Formats: sequence, structure tokens, C-alpha cells
Amino acid sequence: MKLLRVGPAGAERPALLDEDGTLRDLSGVVPDIDPELLADPAALDRVRAAAAAGKLPGAVADTAPEGPRIGPPLARIGKIVCIGLNFHDHARETGAPVPEEPIVFMKAPDTVVGPHDPVLIPRGSRKTDWEVELVVVVGRTARYLETDQEALACVAGYAVGNDVSERAFQLERGGQWDKGKNCETFNPLGPWLVTADEVPDPQALAMRLWVNGTLRQDGSTADQIFPVAEVLRHLSHFMTLHPGDIVSTGTPAGVAMGTPEPKPYLRDGDVVELEIAGLGRQRQVMTSA
Amino acid sequence: MKLLRVGPAGAERPALLDEDGTLRDLSGVVPDIDPELLADPAALDRVRAAAAAGKLPGAVADTAPEGPRIGPPLARIGKIVCIGLNFHDHARETGAPVPEEPIVFMKAPDTVVGPHDPVLIPRGSRKTDWEVELVVVVGRTARYLETDQEALACVAGYAVGNDVSERAFQLERGGQWDKGKNCETFNPLGPWLVTADEVPDPQALAMRLWVNGTLRQDGSTADQIFPVAEVLRHLSHFMTLHPGDIVSTGTPAGVAMGTPEPKPYLRDGDVVELEIAGLGRQRQVMTSA
Repeated sequence: MKLLRVGPAGAERPALLDEDGTLRDLSGVVPDIDPELLADPAALDRVRAAAAAGKLPGAVADTAPEGPRIGPPLARIGKIVCIGLNFHDHARETGAPVPEEPIVFMKAPDTVVGPHDPVLIPRGSRKTDWEVELVVVVGRTARYLETDQEALACVAGYAVGNDVSERAFQLERGGQWDKGKNCETFNPLGPWLVTADEVPDPQALAMRLWVNGTLRQDGSTADQIFPVAEVLRHLSHFMTLHPGDIVSTGTPAGVAMGTPEPKPYLRDGDVVELEIAGLGRQRQVMTSA
Repeated sequence: MKLLRVGPAGAERPALLDEDGTLRDLSGVVPDIDPELLADPAALDRVRAAAAAGKLPGAVADTAPEGPRIGPPLARIGKIVCIGLNFHDHARETGAPVPEEPIVFMKAPDTVVGPHDPVLIPRGSRKTDWEVELVVVVGRTARYLETDQEALACVAGYAVGNDVSERAFQLERGGQWDKGKNCETFNPLGPWLVTADEVPDPQALAMRLWVNGTLRQDGSTADQIFPVAEVLRHLSHFMTLHPGDIVSTGTPAGVAMGTPEPKPYLRDGDVVELEIAGLGRQRQVMTSA
């Protein structure tokens, strides 16, 4: 299933994109797409059954000519764990050695916006950059996992994320990356949460990102140094993952920081588009904060 | 006011510790001590008026002989921002240079437990360490602040925190600190949220921590490299702080990592006690995960 949330920011309603591409209102079936839903197989089965029975009302009413706003596909995200330098080609372009184990950092859930919302370039920014990422949505508690199979059983689904990063804030302003990762709007997510049953192999997904129409990133999760299962298993020995947590699994080559000078860092008015095969497409207009 | 939350984990009720040291039930006045309350001056005034009028019912009923469990004093924490190496004496003991600007990292809100709850030593841990910290609770949105005065106006109150850290996970397992900062139960918070009006000078608070009765940390917020106001102002240029976010402002000298060999890292059964003047005292028993 493709689950999503539509409506004004902060007042989104749960919806489903059916196989015909029709947006269907789920608010009569579940209150929201949230951690409680992901942790409740019976509720997910209710959604599935309602969709299969063709009982869901059609498109969520919206008067905007371009259709309703799409919000992030998950409400009340618990935490966002990110993996750095997780693609061979991206590690090469940044000049970093291939990590021996996953590099972990965190992003605050309040950075998350919808997939087509504006992204704010922070005041004083000179190096705002993009990162298309496969986002894993956790549906079951992950704690001291032993096997890849256990790890994949904890995945509720997948989504597209843009791990927007300010490189000067990240790398030139003190010892940790967080200053460049937690600026407001720095985490467009969606459009959909695609349930894991529709993603048979998370390590075979093409990922692309364009800036102003120019293809900048053209990779595949096949190039991940640590695949999804290994990332989750590894993380579960350092922290407990809960339903509603998300894990951003790293970006392939082609970020501005890895491009020869003059590096094409984002400017007010730039348009970033990104997609992952089967998971949908995002489009953001960069806007000065 | 000293606001707190009492009852079983996940089912705490709001309470107030009055000037006589009596625990008073607030659940008839506000639903919880949470971001909504902090952002609502009228609701806080209601609590204050009810307390002043002596209209609050007495101690929250509890049959435990040692009194009710105390939970973290704030529900639904948005994000936890931490400042690293923010005391001159602690920077010295770790051998790190004095930072030129605040070092920022994040802790997940799901690491927060009550002030007297057990702290779990992660499996495989060899270097679990303590850090008494002054925690700032945000009550008003902080974004691109210009002055210290604006920064302090965003503070709802203060609390004691223990920024428990696994040093091998933090420093020997990849490029960022987060692996050693986000283990489950690694953030005891409380007992109280003391409203800012009762803390006239956050830069004059004695902080102490004992392990098994031995005094290990004996510092003061007067030694902070970046005081509370400067930390908040600085952060607000890299991220937006919202009501219900908390900022952990760093620890003084005396952590296990800074002690001569053999370093006294925490073991199963060790008892950690910590306090900050006017903000209360915590006690945790270390327990194997």
C-alpha cells in the first residue's frame, strides 16, 4: 500500500493512493498514519481490507487547482536516525575513507516537511546541499537484533527523504555534524509510505535527484556499504528503535559538496526534484529563511 | 513552581511540589506537564493561581511505601539538544581544546526516564559514564534570536539531567558521538521542572554527582564556557527551538573518562546520585540491559 497524509500542515488526513492512482480518504478507517497504526497489524489489515473491498471514499476534497497539499506520510515521528557516508561512490567524492561500521547521526523530527513544501535556506548559509535518501520506517521494536531477518521484520515500509544539509554549519562550526542537519524544513519526506510488502528488495532501488532540471545524483541502493538490514541490526545494539522511528540510510554520489568548483550549492529559487523507484517523487523550491 | 509528573511509566499525572514540600495533584487543573502547557501562559497562570489559593488536593494517592514513582517532569519532549565540552574544567580533563563555539549533538527523547528509574548498561558496554547537567526547558519558539534577553525569555524552566554516555560507543565506533548517547534509559530527567522565575541566575548553580557515595563531580554553572543565554541564542541560528524542546548544557569535570586509570566506569549495581542547587536530586541504580 501507498499511505500518505493530505491537507494543510498540521491538519493532514490519512489517505491511500490506490492502484489506479486515485487518492482515497482513510480517515473513516484510521485516525492517522502514525506510530500506533504501524505497530498495530490489525489496524493495517483493516486498511488493506477496506482498500481491497473498494469501500473507501474517493479523492480527499480540496479546492486547490494543483490538488491537495501532501504532508509527510507519518505523523508523530519518534526519532530520525541517519547513516552517513553509506555509499561507496559518495564516500569517494567526499574524500572520506569507507567507514568500518555505520556512521550514525540524528535529525530532529521537527525538521520534517511534506515532499513538495518549500525548503528554507538558513540565514547566513553559503553551502546548503541536497541528499536523496532511502528512508526506512520502523514498525516493530528493534532491540539487540541478531539476524538480518529479524531486522527486516521490523520494517513497516519505505519512503523518499531529502537529507538537506548545510555543509559549512555541518563541518566548519564545531565538532559534530548536527548544526548543519537540523535547520528548519531540512527533511522533506514522502510523498508516500510504501509498505514493506511492496518493496521486495530494498537494495535494488534507483535513486535520482535533479537541481533546476540538471541530473545531479543517479545512484542505486545496490551501492550501499551497509544495507538496510545490517543498518537496523547494528543500530539496535546502540539504541532501541520504536514503531514510528525512521532511519535515513545515506546518499549516493552527486551532492554539491562532492562536485568540482564552483560547487553548485543551493540558492533561493532553485528547484530540487528527487525520486526513488517505486517510492515516488518530491519537488522543493528553495526559499530564503 | 516545581512541576512534576508522578505515577507508573507512561501513565504519569501532573503534580506540583508546594512550598511546604507537599505533593499536590494538578490533574484537575491541566491534563499534563507538556509542550502545550509550557506554550500557554494562561494555563500556567491557572496552575499558579490554584496553588496560591490552596485549592489543590493533597498528595497523589500511591500505595508504595517509598512514595509514588516520579517520572520525567515533561511529557512529549520534542527534541533534546546537548552541548558538549561546555565547562572549562571538563574540557581540560578530556584533553580537548576549549571550543570556539558551542558543540552540538542530539539525544532522542525516547532515552528519557524518571530521575530515580534504573539506568540500563548496554550489552557489550565497557565505558558507561555519568554527566550531571543543567537542562533548560524551552517554553517559547526560539528562531534567529539576537540578544541574550530574547534567549532567556524563551526559557520555561530548568531541571536536572544525567547525560549518560558510553564512551567506547561514543568515541571508538565511527565518526559521530550519537552511538554512545542514545542508548535506552540514558537520560534521567527531573525530579522537577522548576519554572524560570525561581531560578534568578542560571549561571550560579552548584552541581554535584556521587557514585556509590563518593563525590565525583563538584562544579558550578558559573564555569560554563557558553552560558545558557548564549547557548540558546547560538542554537536559534542553526535550528528552531520549540516549546517542549530541552537543551542539556554540558557537564563539569569529574566524569569517569576524565579520571586517572583505572577509570571507574559504571558497573551493574552501582548507584549514581546527582543534584543541582534548587532543582532537586536524582538517584539511579545501574542495571545490566
